[in-house]
Amino acid sequence: MSVESTKDLSTITDTEIFDSHLGGKLSVQSKMPLTSKRDLSIAYTPGVAKVSQAIADDPAKHATHTWASRLVAVVSDGTAVLGLGDIGAAASLPVMEGKSALFKEFGGLDSIPLVLDTKNVDEIVETIVRLQPSFGAVNLEDISAPRCFEIERRLIEELDVPVMHDDQHGTAVVVLAALIGAARQVKRDISSMKVVVSGAGSAGVAVTNLLLSAGVDDVIVLDSRGTIHRERNDLNQFKADLAARTNRDDVMGGLAEALDGADVVVGLSSSTFPEEALAKMNKDAIIFALSNPSPEVMPDVAAKYAAVVATGRSDFPNQINNVLAFPGIFRGALDSGAKKITEEMKVAAAHAIAELTGDDLAADYIIPSALDDRVMPAVAAAVGAAAKASGAL
Amino acid sequence: MSVESTKDLSTITDTEIFDSHLGGKLSVQSKMPLTSKRDLSIAYTPGVAKVSQAIADDPAKHATHTWASRLVAVVSDGTAVLGLGDIGAAASLPVMEGKSALFKEFGGLDSIPLVLDTKNVDEIVETIVRLQPSFGAVNLEDISAPRCFEIERRLIEELDVPVMHDDQHGTAVVVLAALIGAARQVKRDISSMKVVVSGAGSAGVAVTNLLLSAGVDDVIVLDSRGTIHRERNDLNQFKADLAARTNRDDVMGGLAEALDGADVVVGLSSSTFPEEALAKMNKDAIIFALSNPSPEVMPDVAAKYAAVVATGRSDFPNQINNVLAFPGIFRGALDSGAKKITEEMKVAAAHAIAELTGDDLAADYIIPSALDDRVMPAVAAAVGAAAKASGAL
Repeated sequence: MSVESTKDLSTITDTEIFDSHLGGKLSVQSKMPLTSKRDLSIAYTPGVAKVSQAIADDPAKHATHTWASRLVAVVSDGTAVLGLGDIGAAASLPVMEGKSALFKEFGGLDSIPLVLDTKNVDEIVETIVRLQPSFGAVNLEDISAPRCFEIERRLIEELDVPVMHDDQHGTAVVVLAALIGAARQVKRDISSMKVVVSGAGSAGVAVTNLLLSAGVDDVIVLDSRGTIHRERNDLNQFKADLAARTNRDDVMGGLAEALDGADVVVGLSSSTFPEEALAKMNKDAIIFALSNPSPEVMPDVAAKYAAVVATGRSDFPNQINNVLAFPGIFRGALDSGAKKITEEMKVAAAHAIAELTGDDLAADYIIPSALDDRVMPAVAAAVGAAAKASGAL
Repeated sequence: MSVESTKDLSTITDTEIFDSHLGGKLSVQSKMPLTSKRDLSIAYTPGVAKVSQAIADDPAKHATHTWASRLVAVVSDGTAVLGLGDIGAAASLPVMEGKSALFKEFGGLDSIPLVLDTKNVDEIVETIVRLQPSFGAVNLEDISAPRCFEIERRLIEELDVPVMHDDQHGTAVVVLAALIGAARQVKRDISSMKVVVSGAGSAGVAVTNLLLSAGVDDVIVLDSRGTIHRERNDLNQFKADLAARTNRDDVMGGLAEALDGADVVVGLSSSTFPEEALAKMNKDAIIFALSNPSPEVMPDVAAKYAAVVATGRSDFPNQINNVLAFPGIFRGALDSGAKKITEEMKVAAAHAIAELTGDDLAADYIIPSALDDRVMPAVAAAVGAAAKASGAL
């Protein structure tokens, strides 16, 4: 599908948005008919007792004879919701319903939103662990940093099903996919590029880690105080860890200093990219301005300094949208029986997305559309293969 | 719908049951289309942010603009599953999926199963309390006594949404409905009847309490050691509470002693009713043999000693089936905005069910069929009216 014009999207009124949300966006259906006593005797008592007894006798049947093994729990505490911040669990629910709807539409997976009225890391972890037999995977969503890192790490440890914080890794996969496409467009190899990541929140940390996993080795990360480097003594453990593995030349200062001689900048904070800083980038620069709804720099301005520009918005070319990644990642993980989502699976997902542009690759087509129906199957297949290869089963 | 013959139900094979459960019985759907960028901009970013912000500004919009306020969580720890006992959370899931399917089919309510991998009462309560913004009502299911009493009491205290343990109260409502119908059939008033309840588990306790609420005042309850009376020193707090309010004549002994001069017996344990004990009941006796799949006495034998016989099975007349009650109770509670389910609402539900037999009342038609589509609307309306009258809003 082609990029829709700004005008099409600008015709969306508040009334339409609120009316569409009346009563919520999800519905649960029975897959079996329940119109006769015979139906009830199969789906409920007495028939269902045989299925429950079979699972009690052979726990492997839980995966085949319930919906749980194909069910994704979309879990949030409402602490970092879109651009709205800590609005609480109840107010986050429309976003989680939307995410569950996307899982069904784009991943063919059933999904339920679970929003938690606690911000306590221990309580969030233990609540989800207790519910484990209810689902087959966990998509963490809109949980604030640095809490999100510990919650994800502990859930991965304690659960034997795939767990992924999409704001981190979904974003990272699509950024990597776009970077692979952009690099091909400018005839460069990502391993030789100097990349600046503006923003050290959940997405910035995950993007940096995945770029390093994928072979980029010169990355500079900035937080609100400037470049992250080994001399700083104000870093939490996650940023200190980044400092140890990035900024090999110990660049100090702000965005302008970081962009001096850089090939790529990835905007993942709500800051702005001043033109004079962008002007310091190398020839054939790549600018990803991903803040939503206001990019760090508008595409027409960015184009003055770059060969390739991408944003997070659907009304500009090259939309970097998580929906390209998470449906296929979870689908591939569940199809293959993976018990976790490894770095190899994420890198494979990014390559699978990037490859779909094929011969149509262009400066305004470095990644496929979020609505391209080739994406999910390609990502799922690549993720499943990588799951087997990387010991995630 | 007429009662199906035993033959129809006996044609159900294990293969059919297991095949029907492959992949589970539930599916989640998006109620909105998600096929264009415009759709995504309404259901997800950026549109959904307006809905989330509106809920953050006005928490009442959580009830109108999410699915939660009409969503029933079916919650179990798998400790008392059908006739199977403590088979654990994972093995209980097919039953809970079936229950959620019944909520949709018979109550028009969305529902999700949540099974808990803990038997600790504190942990179960706190887990559900933390998830409160995710749903609008809680149906507790297949949780063992006496833990179920405390779990239900604490959840009712801590949540401001309807909570009901269906094994207790759904059963009690349908037993009361059937008793009202049976009493009309034998031209008696329930308040003048002597009722024996065999079984002091979750259903026995709840049936007894609801019969007392509805005006029956001579009830004798039996547990595995015989009649419950004030002289016994082996009673837990729940049975001691029953002893203080039942067995006004301090009848001691077993079933035969309790049935001497009784008008009604309700079987809620997996014991048997010996013929010589049933023979001691009064003229125009009423026998409810509700154990499943094997009633305490088969209907043809019971008929020798009773004017009205009912069982829990769909292949005999007068099936006492919870599906007559819980869909309408929850629907009525949610439609009316009730914050709890009161005794008055349960009694109203029972009368609404009982009244539907109307002029067709007969010894083999004291309650409507589980598939009678008049039942849910009638129950919901009665429950809603009783919610308003009893201060549950």
